[in-house]
Amino acid sequence: MSNTASQKIAAFAANTKWEDIPVDVRHQAKRSLLNYFATAIAGSTEPAMDTSLAVLAPFSGAAVCKLIGRSERVDMPLAAYLNAISANIFDYDDTHQATVIHPTAPIAPALFAQAEIQRCEGKLLLKAFVLGGEIECRIGNAVSPSHYARGWHITSTCGVFGAAMGIGTLLGLNEEQQLWSIGNAAAQASGLVETLGTMSKSISVGNAARNGILSALLAKQGFSGPADPLAGERGFVRVFSDQPSSNRLTDGLGENWEIAKNTYKPYPTGIVLHPVIEGCIRLHQDTGLRSEDVVTVELTGHPLLRERTDRPNVTTGRLSQVSAQHTIAIALRRGRAGLLEFNDDAVAETQRDKIRPEVTFIDDPSRAIEAVHMRVHTHQGQTQEIEIAAAKGGPGNPMTDAELEEKLAELASYRGFNRDVRAIADAIWSLDGTSDAAEVMGFANMPD
Amino acid sequence: MSNTASQKIAAFAANTKWEDIPVDVRHQAKRSLLNYFATAIAGSTEPAMDTSLAVLAPFSGAAVCKLIGRSERVDMPLAAYLNAISANIFDYDDTHQATVIHPTAPIAPALFAQAEIQRCEGKLLLKAFVLGGEIECRIGNAVSPSHYARGWHITSTCGVFGAAMGIGTLLGLNEEQQLWSIGNAAAQASGLVETLGTMSKSISVGNAARNGILSALLAKQGFSGPADPLAGERGFVRVFSDQPSSNRLTDGLGENWEIAKNTYKPYPTGIVLHPVIEGCIRLHQDTGLRSEDVVTVELTGHPLLRERTDRPNVTTGRLSQVSAQHTIAIALRRGRAGLLEFNDDAVAETQRDKIRPEVTFIDDPSRAIEAVHMRVHTHQGQTQEIEIAAAKGGPGNPMTDAELEEKLAELASYRGFNRDVRAIADAIWSLDGTSDAAEVMGFANMPD
Repeated sequence: MSNTASQKIAAFAANTKWEDIPVDVRHQAKRSLLNYFATAIAGSTEPAMDTSLAVLAPFSGAAVCKLIGRSERVDMPLAAYLNAISANIFDYDDTHQATVIHPTAPIAPALFAQAEIQRCEGKLLLKAFVLGGEIECRIGNAVSPSHYARGWHITSTCGVFGAAMGIGTLLGLNEEQQLWSIGNAAAQASGLVETLGTMSKSISVGNAARNGILSALLAKQGFSGPADPLAGERGFVRVFSDQPSSNRLTDGLGENWEIAKNTYKPYPTGIVLHPVIEGCIRLHQDTGLRSEDVVTVELTGHPLLRERTDRPNVTTGRLSQVSAQHTIAIALRRGRAGLLEFNDDAVAETQRDKIRPEVTFIDDPSRAIEAVHMRVHTHQGQTQEIEIAAAKGGPGNPMTDAELEEKLAELASYRGFNRDVRAIADAIWSLDGTSDAAEVMGFANMPD
Repeated sequence: MSNTASQKIAAFAANTKWEDIPVDVRHQAKRSLLNYFATAIAGSTEPAMDTSLAVLAPFSGAAVCKLIGRSERVDMPLAAYLNAISANIFDYDDTHQATVIHPTAPIAPALFAQAEIQRCEGKLLLKAFVLGGEIECRIGNAVSPSHYARGWHITSTCGVFGAAMGIGTLLGLNEEQQLWSIGNAAAQASGLVETLGTMSKSISVGNAARNGILSALLAKQGFSGPADPLAGERGFVRVFSDQPSSNRLTDGLGENWEIAKNTYKPYPTGIVLHPVIEGCIRLHQDTGLRSEDVVTVELTGHPLLRERTDRPNVTTGRLSQVSAQHTIAIALRRGRAGLLEFNDDAVAETQRDKIRPEVTFIDDPSRAIEAVHMRVHTHQGQTQEIEIAAAKGGPGNPMTDAELEEKLAELASYRGFNRDVRAIADAIWSLDGTSDAAEVMGFANMPD
């Protein structure tokens, strides 16, 4: 084979050994998987899941794979599809901040479903996750930022490659087969930003997981594709980006690990609101400030804070996740900001009680997205100020392992998932020592 | 509902009656379906089909739907997926010339599969085909020509909407449900030109049929999408076209019928070669000219003829379909140009026997694509000339109904399909009179 970018990627996927993966990257993979089980449990009984299962189950083969947070079983690709929807439905899953890809939702469900029908070691699954995630994020880098900005849902469009490469690793595909798998995935890359906030979004996320699996299974049986589906003349990168940078596919491959930059959300909102939430919770705890005391709030932050979150009149839980006005009101009232603070009831509450403050945004492009300065003026004529330099969850202040475990427990509680989530966390932290990577699925579903 | 372009399309799909469809459009639909069965039989045993079936059958639900040209049965969405691959695999299916969409391959397999599990009248299936095809071609118009030129496989990307709208018609979806179905389809639009000539292409064509079905089934159960998935700010048309013309979605909707412009290929090559083939066959028949007599050929034609087909050294059957040099050699030798003239053996023959002529291309942008002037110089010092003004199959010289029947018989013979294809043709011509639209599938599969 000549040396196209796609062939280099295929060779990387086919030839990287467990020993080639640095220890910190392996640990980040476990953190991603723990966060995955947390958000998948949280989303597992949403209406979009119930409807998807009802519509698609009649077209399932042998029902041998488990669904996180549920008791039903379905065939392998459908299990991957449905678990991917659960994990991503609240956008509370992980974030590769440079691309805004949620890396894990398309990959992990595919890997655990395959591991349920093809017993494999935990090390192999972890390696498959790292390689799939690495390639997914690098493809995202090569098409960013114009790809998402133009309107492609990057988690879906790039996720199908991650799932394909990960499953190809579990299947032991050789370089040529991995190349074909990339081509098969390229033929299926889809997903539109326009669908965000609607059920339709979930289809493309589910497809990324399912179709990645099929890309690899077909490639294993000789289903062949083009020589350079990624960087070819009409390959994925040029077609799906207005400013393609194909060199980012392979520069530093195996040395600089994109998947190690993965981050996790402590709050179920747009990332730009995280420092605001932290400021509100601290003021609530430290000064006793409450929403009903507040008249106006000045936020000095990155311009994206204003662009994305100046939404004083939101009426749905979904949109409240990107409303500074609702977020400040509910966080200052309750001193917390979990899923219960961003559902339709919470939105109705801040509207009904007229506790959403008037917010003034002051743009400061020199600030990081994870930072904010808040100045709060009260009815009593007082002014409270707080500076958040690096909100929890961002690259400068990552969630700790213990905090990820707490997130798992909190989301299980939110969902009413009454099994012992400690078993899930233990299984993930010791995944590299197990001979049956899929064992954790038996702790994460619901018994019949 | 307000009046977005998508809502107008949804209303058109939900409210158009059989009586609203002109008689000539109904007849064109039958012609499209007859051509569909012909090309699906031809492709039904290709390696890509065997592999797809082997890989995907384990993930099939109840095996209740038939495969054209084969004896296996699979579930409804998988039957649609596989029959779509058969129909399109040789690119010998129909063409909407303004967009180069092959309209029928994604839609007809979906409709007949659904008709096998939900008995319906032939009139309803014909209406569903017309509406699906009309919307598919109009979406193609709105993103053309930059969409295909940039690298999207338009048959796949637009086909998923056609299948969704057609299935929505069979299911009786209301306006709101049809709108959601459009959104669900938009989330799944995929397919790359880069994959043409490889097996990967077939995945996106199959997906268009399968995912269109699921878009409609999900919408029927309330799976909701955005308000304007087609012409919205980050809707399909703007994201998938560099020069979007959303007005083409709805201008003259229900008055000017795009699907009535469908054309059918008499030869399995790029359309630009059709007049060349006709010239060669006439010279073979009328003057006794043979390949071994020919030294050089001058072709005066549309510039696309040169741009697409100047390939003197092709070595695969697939690429021979876009090689003027091979095409002239084999057509002048055999006096015919069917699938047997464009397989690997035929390519090896024209190369081994050194009968590919030297070809000079003379660009004449004023000529139609379906026209050519040929001047042939022989070893004997003679010159033969022929003018083809409108090759068979183009808009100016459409294949007759009888010629479509001959194509069906010829492709069945090529495939070794030994059932009576007369029954298929009769069933299609009388489709608007039958109470069971799927009856024809019983004539087109192979008994166990």
